[in-house]
Amino acid sequence: MASLTNTDGSPLIRERMEALIRLKQKEIVAGLETFETGGEIFTFDSWSRGAEGGGGVSAVLQNGKTFEKAGVNISVVHGNLPPKAIERMRADHAKLGSNSKDGSVNFFACGLSMVIHPNNPHAPTTHLNYRYFETWDENNVPQTWWFGGGADLTPHYLYPEDCKLFHQSHKDALDKYDIHLYPKFKKWCDEYFFIKHRGESRGIGGIFFDDYDNNDPEIILKMVESCFDAFLSSYLPIIEKRKDLPFTEDEKKWQLIRRGRYVEFNLVFDRGTQFGLQTPGSRIESILISLPCHASWYYDHHPEPGSREEELIEVLRNPVDWVSF
Amino acid sequence: MASLTNTDGSPLIRERMEALIRLKQKEIVAGLETFETGGEIFTFDSWSRGAEGGGGVSAVLQNGKTFEKAGVNISVVHGNLPPKAIERMRADHAKLGSNSKDGSVNFFACGLSMVIHPNNPHAPTTHLNYRYFETWDENNVPQTWWFGGGADLTPHYLYPEDCKLFHQSHKDALDKYDIHLYPKFKKWCDEYFFIKHRGESRGIGGIFFDDYDNNDPEIILKMVESCFDAFLSSYLPIIEKRKDLPFTEDEKKWQLIRRGRYVEFNLVFDRGTQFGLQTPGSRIESILISLPCHASWYYDHHPEPGSREEELIEVLRNPVDWVSF
Repeated sequence: MASLTNTDGSPLIRERMEALIRLKQKEIVAGLETFETGGEIFTFDSWSRGAEGGGGVSAVLQNGKTFEKAGVNISVVHGNLPPKAIERMRADHAKLGSNSKDGSVNFFACGLSMVIHPNNPHAPTTHLNYRYFETWDENNVPQTWWFGGGADLTPHYLYPEDCKLFHQSHKDALDKYDIHLYPKFKKWCDEYFFIKHRGESRGIGGIFFDDYDNNDPEIILKMVESCFDAFLSSYLPIIEKRKDLPFTEDEKKWQLIRRGRYVEFNLVFDRGTQFGLQTPGSRIESILISLPCHASWYYDHHPEPGSREEELIEVLRNPVDWVSF
Repeated sequence: MASLTNTDGSPLIRERMEALIRLKQKEIVAGLETFETGGEIFTFDSWSRGAEGGGGVSAVLQNGKTFEKAGVNISVVHGNLPPKAIERMRADHAKLGSNSKDGSVNFFACGLSMVIHPNNPHAPTTHLNYRYFETWDENNVPQTWWFGGGADLTPHYLYPEDCKLFHQSHKDALDKYDIHLYPKFKKWCDEYFFIKHRGESRGIGGIFFDDYDNNDPEIILKMVESCFDAFLSSYLPIIEKRKDLPFTEDEKKWQLIRRGRYVEFNLVFDRGTQFGLQTPGSRIESILISLPCHASWYYDHHPEPGSREEELIEVLRNPVDWVSF
């Protein structure tokens, strides 16, 4: 058993979440490397926050046979949040409080954050992030805690069976804990990854949640583990099917245009990216690892009516209930 | 003579500024087309704001022999600014007021906005924007007005003589009106086009000003015209010298990395872009015309010590007084 405040010597929830993300980084990296038949492997960069507490490990693979760019980061940080940072965070986390005299708060945060951009335009880009946050008072009594995260798929060409598999896999993972979660997290994902000025979603969705503490933390931790496994068991088979499909120069061009849209979302809307870019001392390279090696913008480009490119745009404008598809 | 409130039938300042940007759009387009020896020409897209007043003309050239992408937009819009929009604008324009009962204000705005991305990595990207804004009350009495804008250069490889020519030309244009302007506008430019999370400027600067009404509007209008001419008379010779220089694959790759930084600035920091993306009904394609056809992001890329790439980074981190160089 694990809890926020164990006294029996068993691991705390935060220690178990840290162990989980370290394990999952290894599993994801190993899973992706099986497709690098040219022998390309991930390199691991460790970094620390210097005077602040903690650091992370960025695992990166670039210019592979299957993957243009894949970044699998973990970070485990702790320290003291000054009042200004608390105020900024409170926009998204209303319950974040402080009861210290100077308005600051001690915190711990860990998470795994991943973006994968395959080379083949028929193989979808994907993003996954699971994180845990905790604050405690001067007597080490936990105050606030939550889990957050999700996983989503960004195809450049639509293969409905891939979308269905990805969503069904995540639904199955969540249904074991609460059958109300998938519909809620699926909708949240569609709403979060929306590029307002384009009137379209970044991709075909998945799941997204934040501030989640509506259950025993032990159970949520297991749920997060199930979600990690749902990702691997659906994404790897999708890549296996798509990574070697033949493609044309026009299809590659379309992929790069969609990558441009990915950049637009991440730089203009993604709260995690914005928070990172605004936080002094954060590791910019680990944050911007999400941006693809190559992206394109052409003036006023529109897919041909009736084309496969237009078919994609259609589902980005009108999110689909993929598990019932 | 022109003024804000002519009664003698001569053109108003806003009418003359509109005529000026229409003329300069033609001149810039014609100037750039002289380098398109393959016969590529600009296409002109007119758009209107629909129910709102006004519209614009986007002149675009893509995939030319000399220019990867060049967009020269003019817009002339007028209407009623609701209180919410006024509040947002007031962050940058403190003097913007309202004296109507419902808190809204009648406005007129016109401007020319231009970004040019050449193909050759030795030829610099450039940006120019000059605009005029005016509000008036229910009796058509002008309340607030200002000019804003500037021009700046973004080389990928450093040619100090190009930087000096560009700056000197703009200094000469401003010195005719007030010798205190160039130092002030040069510094403003360095400060504005700064990519905070990278700790570097977007380019080697130029001039930038906003909210400018510290002189007779007639004189400021002439100053803006001189600045337009300073741009053409310096940028065109620079392109002539650089457009056909031989370059390597690595130099092209470096150009695309720098284009990625350009995208970062425009999407994360540029106030005009952010204002446009947040304004319902704005023409997204005309706003994002500033983004290059191709951009790249590689994880943790750093130029070789002592390389020409590092030489550029050095001046982006420590702005140079180019006219005294």
